Amino acid sequence: MVKILVIGAGRSTSSLIGYLLKKASAYNWQVTVADSNLSLAQERVKNYSHAEAVTFDVSNAVEREAFIKANDFVISMLPANMHGDVARDCVRLGRHIATASYVSNDMRELDAEARAKGLLLLNEIGLDPGIDHASAMKIIHDLKAKGATITSFKSYCGGLVAPESNDNPWGYKFSWNPRNVVLAGQSTAQYLHNGEIKFIPYNRLFNQIETIEVDGFGKFDAYANRDSIGYKEPYGLNNVKTLLRGTLREEGYCKAWNVFVKLGLTDDTSKIHNTSNMTYTDLLSSFLPQGSGSVKQRLKQFVGFGWSKDIEEKMEYLELFNNKKIKLNEGTPAQLLQSLLEEKWKLKHGDKDMIVMQHLFEYTLNGKTHQLNSSLVVIGDDEDHTAMAKTVGLPLAITVKNFLTGQFKLSGVQIPIVKEIYEPLLKELEEYQIVFNETH
Amino acid sequence: MVKILVIGAGRSTSSLIGYLLKKASAYNWQVTVADSNLSLAQERVKNYSHAEAVTFDVSNAVEREAFIKANDFVISMLPANMHGDVARDCVRLGRHIATASYVSNDMRELDAEARAKGLLLLNEIGLDPGIDHASAMKIIHDLKAKGATITSFKSYCGGLVAPESNDNPWGYKFSWNPRNVVLAGQSTAQYLHNGEIKFIPYNRLFNQIETIEVDGFGKFDAYANRDSIGYKEPYGLNNVKTLLRGTLREEGYCKAWNVFVKLGLTDDTSKIHNTSNMTYTDLLSSFLPQGSGSVKQRLKQFVGFGWSKDIEEKMEYLELFNNKKIKLNEGTPAQLLQSLLEEKWKLKHGDKDMIVMQHLFEYTLNGKTHQLNSSLVVIGDDEDHTAMAKTVGLPLAITVKNFLTGQFKLSGVQIPIVKEIYEPLLKELEEYQIVFNETH
Repeated sequence: MVKILVIGAGRSTSSLIGYLLKKASAYNWQVTVADSNLSLAQERVKNYSHAEAVTFDVSNAVEREAFIKANDFVISMLPANMHGDVARDCVRLGRHIATASYVSNDMRELDAEARAKGLLLLNEIGLDPGIDHASAMKIIHDLKAKGATITSFKSYCGGLVAPESNDNPWGYKFSWNPRNVVLAGQSTAQYLHNGEIKFIPYNRLFNQIETIEVDGFGKFDAYANRDSIGYKEPYGLNNVKTLLRGTLREEGYCKAWNVFVKLGLTDDTSKIHNTSNMTYTDLLSSFLPQGSGSVKQRLKQFVGFGWSKDIEEKMEYLELFNNKKIKLNEGTPAQLLQSLLEEKWKLKHGDKDMIVMQHLFEYTLNGKTHQLNSSLVVIGDDEDHTAMAKTVGLPLAITVKNFLTGQFKLSGVQIPIVKEIYEPLLKELEEYQIVFNETH
Repeated sequence: MVKILVIGAGRSTSSLIGYLLKKASAYNWQVTVADSNLSLAQERVKNYSHAEAVTFDVSNAVEREAFIKANDFVISMLPANMHGDVARDCVRLGRHIATASYVSNDMRELDAEARAKGLLLLNEIGLDPGIDHASAMKIIHDLKAKGATITSFKSYCGGLVAPESNDNPWGYKFSWNPRNVVLAGQSTAQYLHNGEIKFIPYNRLFNQIETIEVDGFGKFDAYANRDSIGYKEPYGLNNVKTLLRGTLREEGYCKAWNVFVKLGLTDDTSKIHNTSNMTYTDLLSSFLPQGSGSVKQRLKQFVGFGWSKDIEEKMEYLELFNNKKIKLNEGTPAQLLQSLLEEKWKLKHGDKDMIVMQHLFEYTLNGKTHQLNSSLVVIGDDEDHTAMAKTVGLPLAITVKNFLTGQFKLSGVQIPIVKEIYEPLLKELEEYQIVFNETH
């Protein structure tokens, strides 16, 4: 019997845990789902056999060690900055670990010890990062095998709302951690454009955008995502002149979001006190320069030429001019904004989310230039069985299963850019209608 | 014999250590100056008796504990974020500590234990924070004693260059930690204006500025400094409608610095690699949006209407268009910019720096409205005996002396807003020509 511990039972774990529970009896797994909120863990485990729901305080070192020791493989679905202690315990106690998060410095520091002990530190095995790596690497390896030289690679991904559930002017609802959405982009983006390194700082990130079109789903805003240049070497794109990873939002979202960035409402560094006496209109007024007229008029003046009916509609939807009470007693501007958005951008009962991913390649083969587009659209079933939960959770679950059943043997820090990981993963994802559509 | 340990012998410690050494024999002190760089510590100690220079790695817990244990009073001149471990050791081992830095959360957490043990945790006892608190509180207490109601208080301070040494177009040279200058303002500023809370985020901080005039020294730019509102209660300004603390720079500095902020060159969150192959002109180009023409032309276009001959001259002084090599192998944009500025904004031999401070009060007394301005200008002696070192170090040294000689008895976290600290301090500072000039 193999014992699997899943830490975290929140948003985007339904498909991961569902997969593990359905296969548990066939593979002789015992699955423990641990969360600080027991009822959340119980809801995931339901009445499955081979499964148990437990409460677990990850900050309690004694508890953490005991749970990790009692299992063979740990899947951490904690927020990205909380994997560190879990990973250190895993390596010390001789356990494998998988996460859907970017490889952190904590993980990198554990690499040598994990390799020496034959332990897997699997990361970036969700959607983005995850499916993006796997699907891109398949194309890159195929093109290289044909003798092609890849000169440009742009890759975009967004967690959005399905057209049938798109009933707010932002075209956005939360299908994953709201905090990450509010703080998105707060470090300088780096990418390659025509052979030159380009940087976009946060204050211009939502302004310097591209427009991406996906067949049948229309146009999307794309803003640059973190450090794209860091993937040049792992992807083996030695001759690439343009290399960009971007995040998708509904068309018009970025211009309106940029108003929040310029105002300072996404700042997470300084706390505002006594906010339960304030309204969101007061908050907006406090961030606006001195001026006369209503808060809406002052905001219009602040935004200037960039103001539009579309932005006005988005701001009105959030009740920013309605003297809506702030619920928190104190918080950073970003926390106060998040509290409002969690109410306004909630997936309602029956709402479907949507994942859109698109890879754009340019390559030369036999002296000719070619283009290759590969797109993925996944629509969720409902507000719990989201496309986000599927596309984040299934790659994790499938790859853990492939490792535990001996389909690949690797140790140390790994991401799904090697054939033995991505090939069986992409194949099995097809069973779940997670299939890319290629055009040339 | 009282044993005093000074940790850190860098910039702005010359006056502090000089004062302690000159008084050591009279007060029967033994002064130990510790720095990771022994020669720096030795230079400060010179041939004084009652004094010793030692090397000291503050990150070494064993060494740290041994040094702290061997002394009675610790003065930490480390960078603000490095006081934590020292302060914790001091309280655990029963030693007093003083710093010129803002009260940190680390300090606040130690308050109760320090009070219980009768230990002093003296903070904000330099220039700004420090002399600003002391001089403002004297006026506030005097006005209150007369029955006045203070309705507005604005306080400004800047570490600048003396007119006779002002030979670069920025009107700025480093007289303290360059890193703090490059990263200045990176969390939302908060202040009160006519009864309304106002916030200015970093992306607008150097744009939404005021102009301040100091008799005989002309005009200065003033940008809002951190959280001013937090001082309303400690200052006892219950009826104040306007409360602002600001930082001064030479007129025109802020507009030009704002170009760096907008470009993203002050970002400290993301690292750029292989920069020793780059020039500052390449770096600028990488931060500029796509465009044609020279880097200077593209920068002009980027800045738009805000561009001026004055900004052009400042940028040219930094050799930004000259293909000047970057010396670091990697670094955040802020680190790369700092490396350039440390070369360009260095105090030369014989250069004099200048401290400017101004308090602007409005108050009502017997139904009438009054204004009171109080200004301080201090000019340094040379590039080592700077006005910054005097005004940061003397308040620390004098107040530690006043505490050790029993002139006041306080414990826990203290800043110089109480009479028993500020009164003897301001009086002794007059001996060093640190005197405010009041106008009504």
